[in-house]
Amino acid sequence: MVRFVDVPNMRRWLVDTGIERAIEGIAETLVEDFKRWEDFDKTPRVASHSHIGVIELMPASDGRQYGFKYVNGHPSNPARGLQTVTAFGVLADVDSGYPTLWSEMTILTALRTAATSAMVARVLAPEGATTMAMIGTGSQSEFQALAFRALLGIQSLRIWDTDPHAMDVFEANMRPLGFDIVRAASGAEAVQGAQIITTCTADKANATVLTDDMVGPGVHVNAIGGDCPGKTELDARILHRGDIFVEYPPQTRIEGEIQQLDPEYPVIELWRVLRGEAAGRTSAEQITIFDSVGFAIEDFSALRYLDSAIDGTDYFTEVDIIAEPADPKNLFALVAEGASAHSLA
Amino acid sequence: MVRFVDVPNMRRWLVDTGIERAIEGIAETLVEDFKRWEDFDKTPRVASHSHIGVIELMPASDGRQYGFKYVNGHPSNPARGLQTVTAFGVLADVDSGYPTLWSEMTILTALRTAATSAMVARVLAPEGATTMAMIGTGSQSEFQALAFRALLGIQSLRIWDTDPHAMDVFEANMRPLGFDIVRAASGAEAVQGAQIITTCTADKANATVLTDDMVGPGVHVNAIGGDCPGKTELDARILHRGDIFVEYPPQTRIEGEIQQLDPEYPVIELWRVLRGEAAGRTSAEQITIFDSVGFAIEDFSALRYLDSAIDGTDYFTEVDIIAEPADPKNLFALVAEGASAHSLA
Repeated sequence: MVRFVDVPNMRRWLVDTGIERAIEGIAETLVEDFKRWEDFDKTPRVASHSHIGVIELMPASDGRQYGFKYVNGHPSNPARGLQTVTAFGVLADVDSGYPTLWSEMTILTALRTAATSAMVARVLAPEGATTMAMIGTGSQSEFQALAFRALLGIQSLRIWDTDPHAMDVFEANMRPLGFDIVRAASGAEAVQGAQIITTCTADKANATVLTDDMVGPGVHVNAIGGDCPGKTELDARILHRGDIFVEYPPQTRIEGEIQQLDPEYPVIELWRVLRGEAAGRTSAEQITIFDSVGFAIEDFSALRYLDSAIDGTDYFTEVDIIAEPADPKNLFALVAEGASAHSLA
Repeated sequence: MVRFVDVPNMRRWLVDTGIERAIEGIAETLVEDFKRWEDFDKTPRVASHSHIGVIELMPASDGRQYGFKYVNGHPSNPARGLQTVTAFGVLADVDSGYPTLWSEMTILTALRTAATSAMVARVLAPEGATTMAMIGTGSQSEFQALAFRALLGIQSLRIWDTDPHAMDVFEANMRPLGFDIVRAASGAEAVQGAQIITTCTADKANATVLTDDMVGPGVHVNAIGGDCPGKTELDARILHRGDIFVEYPPQTRIEGEIQQLDPEYPVIELWRVLRGEAAGRTSAEQITIFDSVGFAIEDFSALRYLDSAIDGTDYFTEVDIIAEPADPKNLFALVAEGASAHSLA
């Protein structure tokens, strides 16, 4: 039997656990997994493109467990009432090859993306950061805000989105949770006085949601939206002024902000920083940039955390997806058993 | 909601439908799909190897539907009571990126492999073939026998396996279904008088289960077992004497019997034969060889057939795996709804 976490159970687990606590748990697992980077079989995601969107499989394995995520990206979906991104994921036991967990991952991906951002900001953001600017307040934004409060104590948010409705939704969701929110009239206004800038916009273009003059010394930029070829958010000059931290260079060079730069442009791998083998923030004036694209190991970590978190709970059901005849060499018995010769033939 | 066919529902569907009828349905879908070969996005399978086995993802898309199969291969599993191969698969709608069907595929893979073999033999086996030799009577063998009866009317089987228990199981399963079965004392004895030879052994080695002298003129060889690097079943001289038909050359050259041959050795693509663009059998003396490895499009066809076959039936349940907030830009509402500010924080 395989554990199955459907959407209602994911909701129930999350509401009972608390989103911030769940993000903390995922962040701890992320740190553990990033620190043992060499344990992982790292495969680029396998994409199937159509004129309207993309469907991807993202596998990863640490030699004991194997995981993959199915995720789609269809920018025109919201116009017809559908999600841009939906996802589900599977964990399996490498030793037997049997799947062990199947879970919804639309919500879990939002948690792991936010957990990754905040986990990275915890080591890169300037000391004593209190305020975050958020440019783009779509589906990911609330999770980002909660992650930054959980891991860095950020209470003060300065928000901007080209869509006023998106800001309405964000405010309605977040004010009851005790955040101090300033609604800005532009991106430039939003970043004023912020030590951390999160960019998370959906436009699939080489946009400039952050111009060079908007980023002052000492700021940490959490750049989430530039995550596929042809989709970037930052003025390239910002990249030249700061130090760039990435998940997995071969993927980020294709999908991240650094697709704007020379393929040899120096970047710093996060796992090296987390292991203390590379410097993170080295001065109060340094601009640090997390060029986030989302890597399969993060999904693996999120599934692994979920799997341990639901142990001994009722936040999952079991599904019978593995055909197991009594004699492993007699698969046929499984479909012949109880069947008459007539119905079989 | 996504349709879900678990093992009990797969069994029930198959017993009620009849295995031969299901194989016929899959074979029809296979022919349809092979004939529109250029419609498919063909990706090599993505494998994650460990010291003990392999886990693979096999995606395919025709531009309207996307499908993938998860499948493991762990040769040492049966010794501990587990299946060597288990599988499950997913169909999705390319237009929305949403998954539509989730199914067990351990059983379905056995059906599609048998359907492919028989569908190919129907166009390549000699006219009036009545007898099939089967070397290797493991989990796949009963499905092969039923497929060849359904599509070619083969009733007479001559079997051989190095494991007497495997032959016992095969006979016990198949005799009640009306087959005429001769149990041979060797592979050489099994092939006597057979117009079709199916090799389906599990040994992961460059073995020679079929030596050159065992294959007479006019025979069709259905070579299933040689399906991964380092695993072959045929004496290379047989390959030189016959015409070789393959699913997808880039994959077969790595995984099939032809890994023994020069990478440029001529092979014939099945889809061209099915479309009438390449010759199949051209004489009564010709040796034809189907170098089967199993390709992602076959899984796609099997899932597509299953999906249509269960329409309007109760052979599936529905699972809630797609997180769908009322406002597609407000994913947070889905996990905040009904939750107090305290439990969220």
